[in-house]
Amino acid sequence: MHMKNEYQNYMSFSLQSLDFFKDSYELRIAQLKEERGKGIKIVGTFCLYVPDEIIFAAGADRIVLCGGRADTISVAEQSLPRNICPLIKSSFGAVVDAYCGGNLACSHVPLVDVVVAEATCDGKKKMYEILPDYLPTYVLDLPQKPGSPEALDYFLSELRKFGKFMEGLTGNVVSNDALRREIRLANETKRLLHRLFDLRRRNPPPIRGSEVLQVMQKQFFLSPDQFRQGVSRLCDEMERIPPAARTGPRIMISGCPMAAGNMKVPDIIEQKGGVIVVEESCTGTRSFWDLVDEDTDPWMALAERYLEIPCACMTPNDRRVARIVDLAKQYDVQGVVYYTLQFCHAYNIERLQVQRALKKEKIPLLAIESDYGDSDREQIGIRVDAFLEMIA
Amino acid sequence: MHMKNEYQNYMSFSLQSLDFFKDSYELRIAQLKEERGKGIKIVGTFCLYVPDEIIFAAGADRIVLCGGRADTISVAEQSLPRNICPLIKSSFGAVVDAYCGGNLACSHVPLVDVVVAEATCDGKKKMYEILPDYLPTYVLDLPQKPGSPEALDYFLSELRKFGKFMEGLTGNVVSNDALRREIRLANETKRLLHRLFDLRRRNPPPIRGSEVLQVMQKQFFLSPDQFRQGVSRLCDEMERIPPAARTGPRIMISGCPMAAGNMKVPDIIEQKGGVIVVEESCTGTRSFWDLVDEDTDPWMALAERYLEIPCACMTPNDRRVARIVDLAKQYDVQGVVYYTLQFCHAYNIERLQVQRALKKEKIPLLAIESDYGDSDREQIGIRVDAFLEMIA
Repeated sequence: MHMKNEYQNYMSFSLQSLDFFKDSYELRIAQLKEERGKGIKIVGTFCLYVPDEIIFAAGADRIVLCGGRADTISVAEQSLPRNICPLIKSSFGAVVDAYCGGNLACSHVPLVDVVVAEATCDGKKKMYEILPDYLPTYVLDLPQKPGSPEALDYFLSELRKFGKFMEGLTGNVVSNDALRREIRLANETKRLLHRLFDLRRRNPPPIRGSEVLQVMQKQFFLSPDQFRQGVSRLCDEMERIPPAARTGPRIMISGCPMAAGNMKVPDIIEQKGGVIVVEESCTGTRSFWDLVDEDTDPWMALAERYLEIPCACMTPNDRRVARIVDLAKQYDVQGVVYYTLQFCHAYNIERLQVQRALKKEKIPLLAIESDYGDSDREQIGIRVDAFLEMIA
Repeated sequence: MHMKNEYQNYMSFSLQSLDFFKDSYELRIAQLKEERGKGIKIVGTFCLYVPDEIIFAAGADRIVLCGGRADTISVAEQSLPRNICPLIKSSFGAVVDAYCGGNLACSHVPLVDVVVAEATCDGKKKMYEILPDYLPTYVLDLPQKPGSPEALDYFLSELRKFGKFMEGLTGNVVSNDALRREIRLANETKRLLHRLFDLRRRNPPPIRGSEVLQVMQKQFFLSPDQFRQGVSRLCDEMERIPPAARTGPRIMISGCPMAAGNMKVPDIIEQKGGVIVVEESCTGTRSFWDLVDEDTDPWMALAERYLEIPCACMTPNDRRVARIVDLAKQYDVQGVVYYTLQFCHAYNIERLQVQRALKKEKIPLLAIESDYGDSDREQIGIRVDAFLEMIA
């Protein structure tokens, strides 16, 4: 209780520039509608492995379709098994609902001309096979052992094929110059996010983890321009926040993505007094940590950078384990909350490797596997409470 | 009850030549021990995507390590999550148990010099990352979209790399001649299995489904020579069995493999009076249906044939859906029991496509998802009973 009060006191400041993200979202939806009216193609994506740079270089726009809402899951379960990951069910349910004129209304789905999906986990890969009933779907293949030159070649060929697909869709050529421009712009975004995350190294950080997560979720909705503007303003404001007294234990969240709408675990951690300082996930460092090489062939640069994304669908995934340990040190993390979306085998099993590596560094780990429901909220709360007490 | 008695009556014959497989197994274990003593390398595999032909061409031997036993699962659950497929847990538990001197004693594990694994499903792929704690492990990558020339090239490069690995392991060259010889021999096995399965088209078939499954499980344990001898004798005996009166409904089992020890669902189907006439699975048609081209470059021939295995880890997997419909017609199937190992997302989700295709052909499907436990035996029995009544 002591810790909790202290934390709430510290968190009494509020960042004005966060409003920008909320306001921009409305503008963005209007912008996408307008673009569609003009014949600009809108691509829906589900995963970081699909390079935005190629989509933008083709003169198309994109919005992410990953579902974080619980209410579309029952729609999905009319076709999909119940015991698969809630993100997959939520996303699929949103598409089915929008297509069938349901009233749950994910505003993104009707904006999209085509889905560009990827062969990552078993659940998504197989869900994408049913998606064409509702939306045209293109699937990018991935090698699963990213370490070899042959794997890189294969991925490069998949990216080039995807480029051809985008050319066919838009009628525009994906030129090397356009790709280079988009790589530079995307790197700019990545550098801004490094600036944002660097500010979180402070103790206490000048922003809540739940706030950063909501910003990161918007990264996939807003236009890159809007997003950069927002992050830049936010960093400016964060820099002006005066140093404060140390507060609760510094926590890293590591694991599965938390799509917009899915705030359960970060909310619980903060309610219990934990200070989330970094997220090793697709809605965290994985999206921006590594830049794309600007000085080499743009296709190869993209292939190299994107194949290095340390997702648990890759084997072995030592890169991720090393990254987690590195982040834990850089952000002075006292405990890691390992988050698995229910039934996500890859992240679930990979936990063993992460736990071993963290044990060597004497950093405790709390494993949470959860869906989008509320029934485990109290139980998670009790476990988080005990964990924070232990590491405080 | 009527159907059941009729069936039991029909099944009163017994095939003497099945004893050969049981006796051979003991000999085989002795043979592998002797080979190891002579320095011949023994490879353990888990999956049809690893071509035996390359292993044998390198002068090594192989035995499959897939677990069908329930008793090693609790050992595995000390490291692996509980909510993953029982085959993965059983296999991993057998390795851990053997390595740690447990008393469950899978006799295969201690025979093996190295595991050659493959990037198929999420669960296996990630389990293989922990396996090197116990056994040297080599992982063959697979593209996940088998349809393109680039995917074939990538798989070909993986096979060649695997060939080099086998050369390093054994000190023998994997020559094209040796590969061609092994391809011819493996095709001979495949032709014999076609002969066996052709005999099951009879109504009633001259062999129980549960007996065929046990033969198919032995395919991965016995030496190819032993196995061919056994199948050949069995076919001879089956051909001598006189025609009998028609019996219960003709059933296809389709879905996940049933590793040795896992007989629950076929046993229930037969107890309830169903006549299993064909299995579309890795322990059924998937292992032998397609032959390897003997008249082209052996590496390319292997790459082409193995990449065409219609496993649900591939996307899209229309080949499997078409195969199921084709088999249903060829074997005059009245109903399909779709079998999913619990938490196997790929087969579980793919069921939707299979069900749709079968519906068009007016062939009913019963979906069973189960683990290696006994607690659902009665419930499955009730559902199978109702299904058989419906289609009889």
